Amino acid sequence: MQPSALIKFREIIEEKLVEFLPAKTLVPKSIHEAMHYSVCGGGKRIRGSLCLLACRTVGGVWEKAITAACALEMIHSYSLIHDDLPCMDDDDLRRGKPTNHRVFGEAIALLAGDALLTQAFKIMCKHHPPGMADRYYKAAGELASAIDTTGMIGGQVLDLEGEGRSLTIDELQEIHKRKTGALIQAALRIGAIIGGASAEAIGALSEYGAGIGLAFQIIDDLLDLQADPVVLGKNVGSDVKKEKATYATIFGPQEAYGLAEEEIKKAKEALRSFGEDASDLLQLADFLLEREY
Amino acid sequence: MQPSALIKFREIIEEKLVEFLPAKTLVPKSIHEAMHYSVCGGGKRIRGSLCLLACRTVGGVWEKAITAACALEMIHSYSLIHDDLPCMDDDDLRRGKPTNHRVFGEAIALLAGDALLTQAFKIMCKHHPPGMADRYYKAAGELASAIDTTGMIGGQVLDLEGEGRSLTIDELQEIHKRKTGALIQAALRIGAIIGGASAEAIGALSEYGAGIGLAFQIIDDLLDLQADPVVLGKNVGSDVKKEKATYATIFGPQEAYGLAEEEIKKAKEALRSFGEDASDLLQLADFLLEREY
Repeated sequence: MQPSALIKFREIIEEKLVEFLPAKTLVPKSIHEAMHYSVCGGGKRIRGSLCLLACRTVGGVWEKAITAACALEMIHSYSLIHDDLPCMDDDDLRRGKPTNHRVFGEAIALLAGDALLTQAFKIMCKHHPPGMADRYYKAAGELASAIDTTGMIGGQVLDLEGEGRSLTIDELQEIHKRKTGALIQAALRIGAIIGGASAEAIGALSEYGAGIGLAFQIIDDLLDLQADPVVLGKNVGSDVKKEKATYATIFGPQEAYGLAEEEIKKAKEALRSFGEDASDLLQLADFLLEREY
Repeated sequence: MQPSALIKFREIIEEKLVEFLPAKTLVPKSIHEAMHYSVCGGGKRIRGSLCLLACRTVGGVWEKAITAACALEMIHSYSLIHDDLPCMDDDDLRRGKPTNHRVFGEAIALLAGDALLTQAFKIMCKHHPPGMADRYYKAAGELASAIDTTGMIGGQVLDLEGEGRSLTIDELQEIHKRKTGALIQAALRIGAIIGGASAEAIGALSEYGAGIGLAFQIIDDLLDLQADPVVLGKNVGSDVKKEKATYATIFGPQEAYGLAEEEIKKAKEALRSFGEDASDLLQLADFLLEREY
């Protein structure tokens, strides 16, 4: 079952995202409609929620991290739009709807992705809560580092270049660490920074992020192999079609699930020092293992 | 003739850009090679130089604006890579060389553009000179605002949507203001902010930026109509081919040039209050009018 904190935070993030985007009616309308279409198209808001939870876990005021949570979700959304483009994964379906370029055309989809990446940094720089400039500036740097070629974009490239050939476990882990893990870890680090955490607390949350990030990706691979496409909201079997090496195809579903369990266990252990304060993050870790979409 | 300040600053920016990019040898190599290919592929470095000149004009230490100058050039480079993609302008030639996607493929070109946009914000957030955090944070916000859907990206969209139909002068001016003008103005504002300028000084430099920005675009249109493609380094006649309304096609070459002259005159007048300190910017304005590439 979804942790109640996740449901609550998801609703708040949904609401604030609309505020932080340029209005749909603003000229030129096409791009603003395309941005809203993808950003407001549902999703679990895992990254935004992790940011808010991390802030609260370290004793911070989670409301002060909402701008950052929205920036993280904009970044995630930009990466999905660009990923789905014909020159990349060429996907038609995302979150149960046609992908952005299938609705708005490739040019607008490309620019909508660019615009969301830009908007994320814009709100980090210009819409932080009063008195939080220093922390938000530091957080913006964390965000950029997580999604550059040493992080998310680098993972994309490695992923593209790995298609159609067999990968070692180390290679696969490196792809996941960058492609999915870096932004998830950044979400936690950013929440912690905004919450005024110590270096030790940030380190512990990073370790938790590494574990859930990898587990998240393994489960993603398993869902691509086994899930109901209606529940999942995107086409399944695409990894097999592209001869993409994944945890599920290398280890087989059962052993892959075991590895995910192990990562979740390690992730939870990393939070020991927070005691009771970490209960939401512990619950979230379990949820990620059980999710069906 | 090129102002000597422009030549000097261009060399410094070239050198620093390489330092601020991830090394070409870093894994995954393809994307880093693609980034270097476009960023280090020549260019006049107008935006970066405007930033350094603005900083010096307001009495600031121009060396402290180098990081921002490099960020501006990365942004310009990202916009060119994405602009040239098949789903956008589908251009084969840029700065005398094959465009990024013609060399590295569409997927890597797309991601190289994303990576440069990201890297620009990364260096603004993490590589500012000591003691300049506050000014750089403010400058990063200016940068984001200049290139969002109210600025550069919005101009791209209006430009795309205007192809093949006749535009009013107001529409054309709006496209240019956003597509080229916003980043040029931001370069000046950012340099001024880093130089510690007053609101009045920033305002005067913005006005200068508006004038040279529009003149710059008019000259671009004229060059597309009349220039030697070898000197220009890109294909000419593309506006006519795409039935794109430009100043040159609406007013005819001579009247269009007259309008550019007028804008340069207004731009120079906006700098009156700086007296002698503005001599480089005045010279640069004249150069922009005379340029052949």
